[in-house]
Amino acid sequence: MELLKERIRKEGKILPGNIVKVDGFLNHRIDVPLMEQIAQEFRRVFAGKDITLVLTAEASGIALATICAQAFGVPMVFAKKAKSDNIEGGLYQSDILSYTYKKKVTLLVSKEWLSASDKVLIIDDFMARGEAMRGLCDIVREAGAELVGIGVAVEKGFQHGGDRLREAGIPLHSLAIIESADENGFVFREE
Amino acid sequence: MELLKERIRKEGKILPGNIVKVDGFLNHRIDVPLMEQIAQEFRRVFAGKDITLVLTAEASGIALATICAQAFGVPMVFAKKAKSDNIEGGLYQSDILSYTYKKKVTLLVSKEWLSASDKVLIIDDFMARGEAMRGLCDIVREAGAELVGIGVAVEKGFQHGGDRLREAGIPLHSLAIIESADENGFVFREE
Repeated sequence: MELLKERIRKEGKILPGNIVKVDGFLNHRIDVPLMEQIAQEFRRVFAGKDITLVLTAEASGIALATICAQAFGVPMVFAKKAKSDNIEGGLYQSDILSYTYKKKVTLLVSKEWLSASDKVLIIDDFMARGEAMRGLCDIVREAGAELVGIGVAVEKGFQHGGDRLREAGIPLHSLAIIESADENGFVFREE
Repeated sequence: MELLKERIRKEGKILPGNIVKVDGFLNHRIDVPLMEQIAQEFRRVFAGKDITLVLTAEASGIALATICAQAFGVPMVFAKKAKSDNIEGGLYQSDILSYTYKKKVTLLVSKEWLSASDKVLIIDDFMARGEAMRGLCDIVREAGAELVGIGVAVEKGFQHGGDRLREAGIPLHSLAIIESADENGFVFREE
Protein backbone atom coordinates (compact mmCIF):
# COMPACT_ATOMS: atom_id res chain seq x y z
CA MET A 1 0.00 0.00 0.00
CA GLU A 2 1.92 2.98 -1.36
CA LEU A 3 0.31 5.55 0.95
CA LEU A 4 1.43 3.64 4.05
CA LYS A 5 4.96 3.13 2.70
CA GLU A 6 5.19 6.87 2.03
CA ARG A 7 4.22 7.64 5.63
CA ILE A 8 6.82 5.17 6.91
CA ARG A 9 9.51 6.70 4.66
CA LYS A 10 8.54 10.22 5.72
CA GLU A 11 7.82 9.79 9.44
CA GLY A 12 9.19 6.40 10.50
CA LYS A 13 12.32 6.27 12.64
CA ILE A 14 14.92 3.57 13.08
CA LEU A 15 16.21 3.03 16.61
CA PRO A 16 19.21 0.93 17.66
CA GLY A 17 18.44 -2.79 17.63
CA ASN A 18 16.39 -2.62 14.42
CA ILE A 19 13.46 -1.09 16.24
CA VAL A 20 11.16 0.59 13.74
CA LYS A 21 9.21 3.44 15.23
CA VAL A 22 5.97 4.52 13.59
CA ASP A 23 4.33 5.90 16.69
CA GLY A 24 3.32 9.21 15.13
CA PHE A 25 0.50 7.62 13.13
CA LEU A 26 0.14 3.91 13.94
CA ASN A 27 0.75 2.89 17.53
CA HIS A 28 0.90 5.75 20.01
CA ARG A 29 -0.66 8.68 18.19
CA ILE A 30 -3.34 7.31 15.85
CA ASP A 31 -4.07 8.95 12.51
CA VAL A 32 -7.69 7.81 12.17
CA PRO A 33 -8.19 8.69 8.45
CA LEU A 34 -5.08 6.60 7.65
CA MET A 35 -6.61 3.72 9.64
CA GLU A 36 -9.76 4.12 7.54
CA GLN A 37 -7.76 3.86 4.32
CA ILE A 38 -5.93 0.77 5.63
CA ALA A 39 -9.31 -0.77 6.56
CA GLN A 40 -10.62 -0.14 3.03
CA GLU A 41 -7.54 -1.88 1.63
CA PHE A 42 -8.22 -4.93 3.84
CA ARG A 43 -11.85 -4.88 2.72
CA ARG A 44 -10.65 -5.12 -0.86
CA VAL A 45 -8.15 -7.92 -0.05
CA PHE A 46 -10.60 -9.98 2.02
CA ALA A 47 -13.75 -9.23 0.01
CA GLY A 48 -16.49 -11.86 -0.11
CA LYS A 49 -15.14 -13.84 2.83
CA ASP A 50 -18.21 -13.45 5.11
CA ILE A 51 -16.07 -12.37 8.04
CA THR A 52 -18.01 -12.39 11.33
CA LEU A 53 -15.36 -11.10 13.72
CA VAL A 54 -12.16 -9.04 13.78
CA LEU A 55 -9.65 -10.27 16.38
CA THR A 56 -6.54 -8.50 17.67
CA ALA A 57 -4.33 -8.38 20.76
CA GLU A 58 -4.05 -5.50 23.18
CA ALA A 59 -2.86 -2.86 23.14
CA SER A 60 -1.60 -1.20 19.98
CA GLY A 61 -3.64 -3.33 17.55
CA ILE A 62 -6.94 -2.18 19.04
CA ALA A 63 -7.24 1.14 17.20
CA LEU A 64 -6.73 -0.32 13.71
CA ALA A 65 -8.83 -3.41 14.50
CA THR A 66 -11.71 -1.18 15.65
CA ILE A 67 -11.71 0.76 12.38
CA CYS A 68 -11.45 -2.50 10.40
CA ALA A 69 -14.40 -3.99 12.32
CA GLN A 70 -16.31 -0.82 11.47
CA ALA A 71 -15.47 -1.22 7.77
CA PHE A 72 -16.52 -4.90 7.75
CA GLY A 73 -19.63 -4.22 9.88
CA VAL A 74 -18.71 -6.84 12.50
CA PRO A 75 -17.71 -6.79 16.19
CA MET A 76 -14.08 -6.61 17.29
CA VAL A 77 -12.61 -8.74 20.06
CA PHE A 78 -9.21 -8.03 21.55
CA ALA A 79 -7.20 -10.68 23.39
CA LYS A 80 -6.18 -9.49 26.84
CA LYS A 81 -2.66 -9.90 28.13
CA ALA A 82 -2.29 -11.69 31.49
CA LYS A 83 -5.15 -12.27 33.84
CA SER A 84 -7.31 -9.51 35.24
CA ASP A 85 -10.19 -9.92 37.67
CA ASN A 86 -12.56 -8.78 34.97
CA ILE A 87 -12.41 -12.02 33.01
CA GLU A 88 -14.11 -14.99 34.58
CA GLY A 89 -14.07 -18.69 33.75
CA GLY A 90 -13.98 -20.12 30.23
CA LEU A 91 -11.01 -18.72 28.41
CA TYR A 92 -9.03 -19.56 25.32
CA GLN A 93 -5.38 -18.85 25.97
CA SER A 94 -1.94 -18.95 24.42
CA ASP A 95 1.47 -18.10 25.86
CA ILE A 96 3.67 -15.87 23.74
CA LEU A 97 7.01 -14.14 24.17
CA SER A 98 6.61 -10.37 23.95
CA TYR A 99 9.41 -8.80 21.90
CA THR A 100 8.46 -5.34 23.17
CA TYR A 101 8.46 -6.25 26.84
CA LYS A 102 11.01 -9.11 26.77
CA LYS A 103 8.86 -11.47 28.81
CA LYS A 104 6.25 -14.18 28.53
CA VAL A 105 2.69 -12.99 28.38
CA THR A 106 -0.54 -14.96 28.09
CA LEU A 107 -3.15 -13.94 25.54
CA LEU A 108 -6.70 -14.53 26.76
CA VAL A 109 -10.05 -14.49 24.99
CA SER A 110 -13.33 -15.28 26.73
CA LYS A 111 -15.14 -18.29 25.26
CA GLU A 112 -18.29 -16.18 25.33
CA TRP A 113 -17.09 -13.99 22.47
CA LEU A 114 -15.48 -16.41 20.02
CA SER A 115 -17.14 -19.61 18.84
CA ALA A 116 -16.76 -22.39 16.28
CA SER A 117 -19.19 -20.64 13.96
CA ASP A 118 -17.00 -17.53 13.63
CA LYS A 119 -15.06 -16.60 10.49
CA VAL A 120 -12.20 -14.59 11.89
CA LEU A 121 -10.02 -11.89 10.39
CA ILE A 122 -6.99 -11.21 12.61
CA ILE A 123 -5.73 -7.64 12.39
CA ASP A 124 -2.58 -6.15 13.87
CA ASP A 125 -0.73 -2.90 13.42
CA PHE A 126 2.72 -4.41 13.45
CA MET A 127 4.42 -7.78 13.12
CA ALA A 128 8.04 -8.58 13.86
CA ARG A 129 8.71 -12.15 14.94
CA GLY A 130 5.01 -12.91 14.81
CA GLU A 131 4.64 -14.16 18.39
CA ALA A 132 1.41 -12.31 19.10
CA MET A 133 0.08 -13.51 15.75
CA ARG A 134 0.98 -17.11 16.54
CA GLY A 135 -0.89 -16.76 19.85
CA LEU A 136 -3.98 -15.33 18.12
CA CYS A 137 -3.92 -18.17 15.54
CA ASP A 138 -3.71 -20.68 18.46
CA ILE A 139 -6.77 -19.09 20.04
CA VAL A 140 -8.80 -19.22 16.79
CA ARG A 141 -7.83 -22.92 16.41
CA GLU A 142 -8.72 -23.64 20.06
CA ALA A 143 -12.17 -22.14 19.46
CA GLY A 144 -12.67 -24.28 16.36
CA ALA A 145 -13.37 -21.07 14.42
CA GLU A 146 -12.31 -20.48 10.83
CA LEU A 147 -9.27 -18.26 10.27
CA VAL A 148 -10.20 -16.35 7.13
CA GLY A 149 -7.01 -14.35 7.01
CA ILE A 150 -4.56 -12.06 8.71
CA GLY A 151 -4.14 -8.40 7.89
CA VAL A 152 -1.06 -6.57 9.13
CA ALA A 153 -0.25 -2.92 8.49
CA VAL A 154 3.54 -3.00 8.91
CA GLU A 155 5.60 -6.20 8.81
CA LYS A 156 9.30 -6.33 9.62
CA GLY A 157 10.19 -8.78 6.84
CA PHE A 158 13.75 -9.21 8.07
CA GLN A 159 12.52 -10.86 11.26
CA HIS A 160 10.68 -13.54 9.23
CA GLY A 161 7.63 -13.98 11.46
CA GLY A 162 5.40 -13.36 8.44
CA ASP A 163 7.34 -15.77 6.24
CA ARG A 164 6.79 -18.57 8.76
CA LEU A 165 3.05 -17.93 8.72
CA ARG A 166 2.95 -17.86 4.90
CA GLU A 167 4.93 -21.14 4.75
CA ALA A 168 2.30 -22.64 7.08
CA GLY A 169 -0.32 -21.75 4.44
CA ILE A 170 -1.97 -18.94 6.39
CA PRO A 171 -3.40 -16.15 4.19
CA LEU A 172 -1.39 -13.26 5.58
CA HIS A 173 -1.55 -9.90 3.86
CA SER A 174 0.81 -7.15 5.02
CA LEU A 175 0.45 -3.69 3.53
CA ALA A 176 4.10 -2.67 3.98
CA ILE A 177 6.87 -5.24 4.43
CA ILE A 178 10.12 -3.66 5.59
CA GLU A 179 13.10 -5.66 4.28
CA SER A 180 15.73 -3.47 5.86
CA ALA A 181 15.86 -0.39 8.03
CA ASP A 182 19.19 1.29 8.66
CA GLU A 183 20.99 4.62 8.26
CA ASN A 184 20.17 4.48 4.54
CA GLY A 185 16.46 4.45 5.26
CA PHE A 186 13.71 1.91 4.65
CA VAL A 187 13.70 -0.74 1.94
CA PHE A 188 10.35 -2.44 1.27
CA ARG A 189 9.78 -5.92 -0.16
CA GLU A 190 8.60 -5.85 -3.78
CA GLU A 191 5.03 -7.09 -4.24
CA MET B 1 -27.59 7.92 27.78
CA GLU B 2 -30.60 5.62 27.86
CA LEU B 3 -29.35 3.27 25.13
CA LEU B 4 -26.17 2.52 27.07
CA LYS B 5 -28.04 2.02 30.34
CA GLU B 6 -30.35 -0.45 28.59
CA ARG B 7 -27.37 -2.45 27.35
CA ILE B 8 -25.88 -2.50 30.84
CA ARG B 9 -29.22 -3.65 32.34
CA LYS B 10 -29.62 -6.32 29.68
CA GLU B 11 -26.07 -7.62 29.26
CA GLY B 12 -24.02 -6.36 32.20
CA LYS B 13 -22.99 -8.78 34.91
CA ILE B 14 -22.10 -8.22 38.54
CA LEU B 15 -19.20 -10.27 39.91
CA PRO B 16 -18.18 -10.64 43.57
CA GLY B 17 -16.34 -7.56 44.85
CA ASN B 18 -18.60 -5.10 43.03
CA ILE B 19 -16.92 -5.84 39.73
CA VAL B 20 -19.19 -4.72 36.92
CA LYS B 21 -18.65 -6.69 33.73
CA VAL B 22 -19.66 -5.15 30.42
CA ASP B 23 -17.19 -7.04 28.29
CA GLY B 24 -19.73 -8.16 25.70
CA PHE B 25 -19.97 -4.71 24.14
CA LEU B 26 -17.51 -2.28 25.77
CA ASN B 27 -14.17 -3.69 26.83
CA HIS B 28 -13.37 -7.14 25.44
CA ARG B 29 -15.81 -7.61 22.58
CA ILE B 30 -16.46 -4.18 21.03
CA ASP B 31 -19.85 -3.28 19.56
CA VAL B 32 -18.66 -0.66 17.07
CA PRO B 33 -22.08 0.87 16.21
CA LEU B 34 -22.67 1.41 19.95
CA MET B 35 -19.25 3.14 20.15
CA GLU B 36 -20.38 5.37 17.26
CA GLN B 37 -23.54 6.34 19.14
CA ILE B 38 -21.53 7.07 22.30
CA ALA B 39 -19.14 9.21 20.22
CA GLN B 40 -22.08 11.19 18.79
CA GLU B 41 -23.31 11.81 22.35
CA PHE B 42 -19.88 13.16 23.36
CA ARG B 43 -19.87 15.34 20.23
CA ARG B 44 -23.14 16.84 21.42
CA VAL B 45 -21.86 17.33 25.00
CA PHE B 46 -18.51 18.84 23.98
CA ALA B 47 -19.71 20.77 20.91
CA GLY B 48 -17.90 23.97 19.97
CA LYS B 49 -14.87 23.25 22.14
CA ASP B 50 -12.28 23.15 19.31
CA ILE B 51 -10.84 19.87 20.54
CA THR B 52 -7.50 19.01 18.88
CA LEU B 53 -6.75 15.64 20.46
CA VAL B 54 -8.50 12.70 22.10
CA LEU B 55 -6.41 11.10 24.87
CA THR B 56 -6.95 7.73 26.57
CA ALA B 57 -4.96 5.05 28.39
CA GLU B 58 -4.27 1.57 27.10
CA ALA B 59 -5.83 -0.85 26.72
CA SER B 60 -9.60 -0.96 26.95
CA GLY B 61 -10.17 2.75 26.34
CA ILE B 62 -8.52 2.62 22.92
CA ALA B 63 -11.50 1.32 20.93
CA LEU B 64 -13.94 3.98 22.15
CA ALA B 65 -11.31 6.74 21.98
CA THR B 66 -10.55 5.81 18.36
CA ILE B 67 -14.21 6.13 17.35
CA CYS B 68 -14.50 9.41 19.30
CA ALA B 69 -11.40 10.80 17.54
CA GLN B 70 -13.02 9.82 14.26
CA ALA B 71 -16.23 11.66 15.22
CA PHE B 72 -14.30 14.82 16.25
CA GLY B 73 -11.96 14.61 13.23
CA VAL B 74 -8.80 14.71 15.37
CA PRO B 75 -5.95 12.30 16.18
CA MET B 76 -6.08 9.95 19.17
CA VAL B 77 -3.16 9.39 21.53
CA PHE B 78 -3.12 6.58 24.06
CA ALA B 79 -0.92 6.61 27.13
CA LYS B 80 1.20 3.48 27.37
CA LYS B 81 1.53 1.54 30.59
CA ALA B 82 5.10 0.92 31.79
CA LYS B 83 8.12 1.37 29.65
CA SER B 84 8.66 -0.40 26.36
CA ASP B 85 11.68 -0.09 24.06
CA ASN B 86 9.50 1.58 21.50
CA ILE B 87 9.28 4.88 23.34
CA GLU B 88 12.42 6.96 23.45
CA GLY B 89 13.33 10.03 25.45
CA GLY B 90 11.00 12.90 26.28
CA LEU B 91 8.00 11.51 28.10
CA TYR B 92 5.20 12.86 30.23
CA GLN B 93 4.46 10.36 32.96
CA SER B 94 2.24 9.70 35.94
CA ASP B 95 2.16 6.80 38.40
CA ILE B 96 -1.23 5.31 39.10
CA LEU B 97 -2.57 2.35 41.04
CA SER B 98 -4.34 -0.09 38.74
CA TYR B 99 -7.53 -1.41 40.30
CA THR B 100 -7.76 -4.16 37.68
CA TYR B 101 -4.22 -5.42 38.15
CA LYS B 102 -3.69 -4.46 41.81
CA LYS B 103 -0.32 -2.84 41.21
CA LYS B 104 1.37 0.44 40.41
CA VAL B 105 1.68 1.24 36.74
CA THR B 106 3.19 4.25 35.03
CA LEU B 107 1.27 6.03 32.28
CA LEU B 108 3.54 7.41 29.57
CA VAL B 109 2.93 9.81 26.70
CA SER B 110 5.65 10.94 24.32
CA LYS B 111 6.24 14.70 24.34
CA GLU B 112 6.20 14.55 20.56
CA TRP B 113 2.45 13.92 20.45
CA LEU B 114 1.03 16.24 23.11
CA SER B 115 1.89 19.92 23.40
CA ALA B 116 0.87 23.11 25.19
CA SER B 117 -1.25 24.14 22.20
CA ASP B 118 -3.51 21.07 22.43
CA LYS B 119 -7.11 21.19 23.61
CA VAL B 120 -7.60 17.72 24.98
CA LEU B 121 -10.69 15.57 25.44
CA ILE B 122 -9.93 12.57 27.65
CA ILE B 123 -12.05 9.52 26.84
CA ASP B 124 -12.31 6.25 28.73
CA ASP B 125 -14.66 3.30 28.61
CA PHE B 126 -14.89 2.84 32.35
CA MET B 127 -14.13 4.69 35.55
CA ALA B 128 -14.12 3.26 39.06
CA ARG B 129 -11.79 4.99 41.50
CA GLY B 130 -10.54 7.25 38.74
CA GLU B 131 -6.85 6.45 39.09
CA ALA B 132 -6.18 6.18 35.34
CA MET B 133 -8.13 9.40 34.85
CA ARG B 134 -6.10 11.20 37.52
CA GLY B 135 -2.93 10.04 35.71
CA LEU B 136 -4.20 11.30 32.36
CA CYS B 137 -5.13 14.67 33.90
CA ASP B 138 -1.60 14.88 35.37
CA ILE B 139 -0.12 14.28 31.93
CA VAL B 140 -2.28 16.98 30.29
CA ARG B 141 -1.21 19.41 33.06
CA GLU B 142 2.47 18.44 32.66
CA ALA B 143 2.22 19.20 28.94
CA GLY B 144 0.66 22.60 29.66
CA ALA B 145 -2.23 21.62 27.39
CA GLU B 146 -5.85 22.60 28.00
CA LEU B 147 -8.14 19.90 29.41
CA VAL B 148 -11.41 20.59 27.65
CA GLY B 149 -13.26 17.76 29.31
CA ILE B 150 -13.52 14.11 30.18
CA GLY B 151 -15.97 11.71 28.62
CA VAL B 152 -16.58 8.36 30.29
CA ALA B 153 -18.98 5.69 29.06
CA VAL B 154 -19.61 3.84 32.33
CA GLU B 155 -18.83 5.28 35.76
CA LYS B 156 -19.09 3.29 38.98
CA GLY B 157 -20.60 6.11 41.04
CA PHE B 158 -20.33 4.17 44.30
CA GLN B 159 -16.52 4.25 44.09
CA HIS B 160 -16.57 8.08 43.94
CA GLY B 161 -13.63 8.61 41.56
CA GLY B 162 -15.88 10.73 39.36
CA ASP B 163 -17.20 12.77 42.29
CA ARG B 164 -13.64 13.72 43.28
CA LEU B 165 -12.95 14.96 39.73
CA ARG B 166 -16.23 16.95 39.64
CA GLU B 167 -15.41 18.52 43.03
CA ALA B 168 -12.05 19.58 41.58
CA GLY B 169 -13.98 21.47 38.89
CA ILE B 170 -13.12 19.16 36.00
CA PRO B 171 -15.85 18.95 33.33
CA LEU B 172 -16.51 15.22 33.54
CA HIS B 173 -19.44 13.76 31.64
CA SER B 174 -20.33 10.10 32.21
CA LEU B 175 -23.05 8.52 30.08
CA ALA B 176 -24.12 5.93 32.66
CA ILE B 177 -23.34 6.30 36.36
CA ILE B 178 -23.95 3.10 38.31
CA GLU B 179 -24.98 3.89 41.90
CA SER B 180 -25.32 0.29 42.97
CA ALA B 181 -24.90 -3.12 41.44
CA ASP B 182 -26.02 -6.16 43.39
CA GLU B 183 -28.35 -9.18 43.18
CA ASN B 184 -31.24 -6.77 42.56
CA GLY B 185 -29.57 -5.44 39.41
CA PHE B 186 -28.21 -2.07 38.43
CA VAL B 187 -29.33 1.28 39.83
CA PHE B 188 -28.23 4.38 37.87
CA ARG B 189 -27.75 7.89 39.20
CA GLU B 190 -30.54 10.27 38.17
CA GLU B 191 -29.43 13.02 35.80
